[in-house]
Amino acid sequence: MQRILSTQLRAHVDQTVTIAGWIHRRRLLKSVAFLILRDAEGLSQVVVAEPETRAQLEELAEESVVEVVATVTANEQAPGGVELTGPKIRVLSAVTAPLPFELHRPAIGASLPTQLDHAALALRHPARRSALRVAAAATAGFRAALSEQRFVEIQTPKIVASATESGADVFELEYFGRPAYLAQSPQFYKQLMVGVFERVFEVGPVFRAEPSDTVRHLAQYTSLDAEMGFIEDHRDVMKALTRTLTVMMATITARARLATPRVPSEIPAVHFSEALRIAGAPADEPDLAPAHERALGEWALREHGSDFVYVTGYPMRKRPFYTHPDPADPAYSNGFDLLFRGLEIVTGGQRLHRYEDYVAALGRAGEPLEPYAGYLDGFRYGMPPHGGWAIGLERFVARLTGTANVREVTAFPRDLNRVIP
Amino acid sequence: MQRILSTQLRAHVDQTVTIAGWIHRRRLLKSVAFLILRDAEGLSQVVVAEPETRAQLEELAEESVVEVVATVTANEQAPGGVELTGPKIRVLSAVTAPLPFELHRPAIGASLPTQLDHAALALRHPARRSALRVAAAATAGFRAALSEQRFVEIQTPKIVASATESGADVFELEYFGRPAYLAQSPQFYKQLMVGVFERVFEVGPVFRAEPSDTVRHLAQYTSLDAEMGFIEDHRDVMKALTRTLTVMMATITARARLATPRVPSEIPAVHFSEALRIAGAPADEPDLAPAHERALGEWALREHGSDFVYVTGYPMRKRPFYTHPDPADPAYSNGFDLLFRGLEIVTGGQRLHRYEDYVAALGRAGEPLEPYAGYLDGFRYGMPPHGGWAIGLERFVARLTGTANVREVTAFPRDLNRVIP
Repeated sequence: MQRILSTQLRAHVDQTVTIAGWIHRRRLLKSVAFLILRDAEGLSQVVVAEPETRAQLEELAEESVVEVVATVTANEQAPGGVELTGPKIRVLSAVTAPLPFELHRPAIGASLPTQLDHAALALRHPARRSALRVAAAATAGFRAALSEQRFVEIQTPKIVASATESGADVFELEYFGRPAYLAQSPQFYKQLMVGVFERVFEVGPVFRAEPSDTVRHLAQYTSLDAEMGFIEDHRDVMKALTRTLTVMMATITARARLATPRVPSEIPAVHFSEALRIAGAPADEPDLAPAHERALGEWALREHGSDFVYVTGYPMRKRPFYTHPDPADPAYSNGFDLLFRGLEIVTGGQRLHRYEDYVAALGRAGEPLEPYAGYLDGFRYGMPPHGGWAIGLERFVARLTGTANVREVTAFPRDLNRVIP
Repeated sequence: MQRILSTQLRAHVDQTVTIAGWIHRRRLLKSVAFLILRDAEGLSQVVVAEPETRAQLEELAEESVVEVVATVTANEQAPGGVELTGPKIRVLSAVTAPLPFELHRPAIGASLPTQLDHAALALRHPARRSALRVAAAATAGFRAALSEQRFVEIQTPKIVASATESGADVFELEYFGRPAYLAQSPQFYKQLMVGVFERVFEVGPVFRAEPSDTVRHLAQYTSLDAEMGFIEDHRDVMKALTRTLTVMMATITARARLATPRVPSEIPAVHFSEALRIAGAPADEPDLAPAHERALGEWALREHGSDFVYVTGYPMRKRPFYTHPDPADPAYSNGFDLLFRGLEIVTGGQRLHRYEDYVAALGRAGEPLEPYAGYLDGFRYGMPPHGGWAIGLERFVARLTGTANVREVTAFPRDLNRVIP
């Protein structure tokens, strides 16, 4: 008999069906026992009144995998309005080891390190599972929005000959007898691919050997990257990003059943110097501290009813060498950040596009040209004005789901102290 | 004026439009000059009759990026039936360096190493570009097919504490003061995630430190991975894969305008021992050599009119330890390969799902349990019968486009000798 899912039970009242999944919980009362079965879509309640089946259930620990053939019975008291009666249980995989923590409570009782040590188990908890569904939906929405806007998906190297974003915080590896590094971003490659497709995107892992043990840093995270050519300046990039966020939110609501904030058709944007003023920071600060970002988030919500705010025109000295200066005031850049509920989740901007500008910028930064030779080669042969952005997926999902630590929305996080499981 | 694309010109006959792109080719004839402009979608022919504009064009080397304002004029002799006349050219990025090779011939004249040295330029060639579009469409089709079949997308660690597929051929890196490795596949993680979502997929980079310098090996390639629970055996996996391939082919045809082979609703499947007989190999061969795969590809086409053939039941001794044996004959496995036009492009099968079977299998393989502790933990807490597959994207695209070397369908390939650009 074809297995059906927990969410399909209501359509089968009074029929005999097969369901399958994990024993989420057993409640062994005196007169009757309940088996709560978890499958990919939800929970089902199985009523066990028969002594033989009850004896079998008593031997089956939580998380055992079983197939149940039973009758679907309407019962308005039962979760979802249906329950299963007269069950026959077939064991697919019996659990004999005691669980390190229970999964059927609203939150996992164990400490986060214990949860992460047993990630394969902890991720089965409905709250953890649901955050990963949000991540999957966000990613699907990102791709859909960009495909609709004529971006082409690319896959770029994760092993590179020289550090991309900065010399520090990079993982070194042994590559056929010579040193190489894990890519800190697909920055250079996505720019070069603008020369091929004009508009490109990539969803992939990036690696940061950051010694920061905080709730928002991971040694590997998923970067949602986009880059587009033939722009006037960074404002074209912000427009494409705003559209992308709108589709991402709609996709998350549709696929992951999570209420998402409205994305204004025009997200409020403030220049960096104005942002300092709003945040009450000294006018000579070169960057925004987390407290400033929070203040800006509150300001955007209060003044514009928006969970989002763009900060534009970051000072050039705090942005990477490939950043395009503001033509009207070259101390400032055409770079921007997007803050979501007071946290930076996207960095983007217009990039330099002329070979000679790169040579000059690297010279000013005191950097040799040689490590960038492969990158610069593409600019030697004609690149349009372009820009793009990168969204940190885990930070975005954490902020959206109200989760304090990015590790709770990452399947098997990697950090300073953790490389297993 | 809003820029339009080369493919939109026909809808604008007799209008003045703005187009932009790269100077693909110049033809400076005595009485008139032609500028062939390349954008993301195709080519446009611009007729330059005006002396001043011609003088400007003479200074602009191929691959310069320009914006052209001109009138769309119907001309049945022109490619696409339209050309642009009376142009005004604005230079966005001038090329002054000589190109290492020309892009406007049917094939790039330079050797493959020279092309790869200048990958950012070579990838602009229409043939190279079109192969990458096929890769993007294949990936999109893969995801669409699996989402439709209730698979959830996951992102898994690429830095791992121990080798996944085998101890050899693994890149070692320095991870916060201790050794770690680049993941050779998401195998263990996708299996563990079956415990969370029942059905999962991942598109991501995998890393093989293979010292093989061949046309089909890369040190980093893109793996299209899927894994599904609650199967009877490997045949359920093959059914899901067949459906997935069907959607992938349709998506490639629709999005990348490439004719694709028919995927039979039931792809012919032969048992390994039968495959040896068909290929004319000795009955005690433990694996299929490339020549055997080619012979099987010819057989499938001849006997079944199919470009695809499954080989099932590979001997256990040639499959990894997590492979599920054939219950009817445990010397053989429930593992399969899919050959496409005589080349293996997919490996898959049913996996072990019981903790005690893993302990026994690792014992038989003479492997200690400890490096697998994080992996085995998930099996201790209940896993359903499951299986899955991995498609090598670059091999698949190379075979589909009739390209000899996987490096020609990879944006910036990594191999034994190459880590730049």
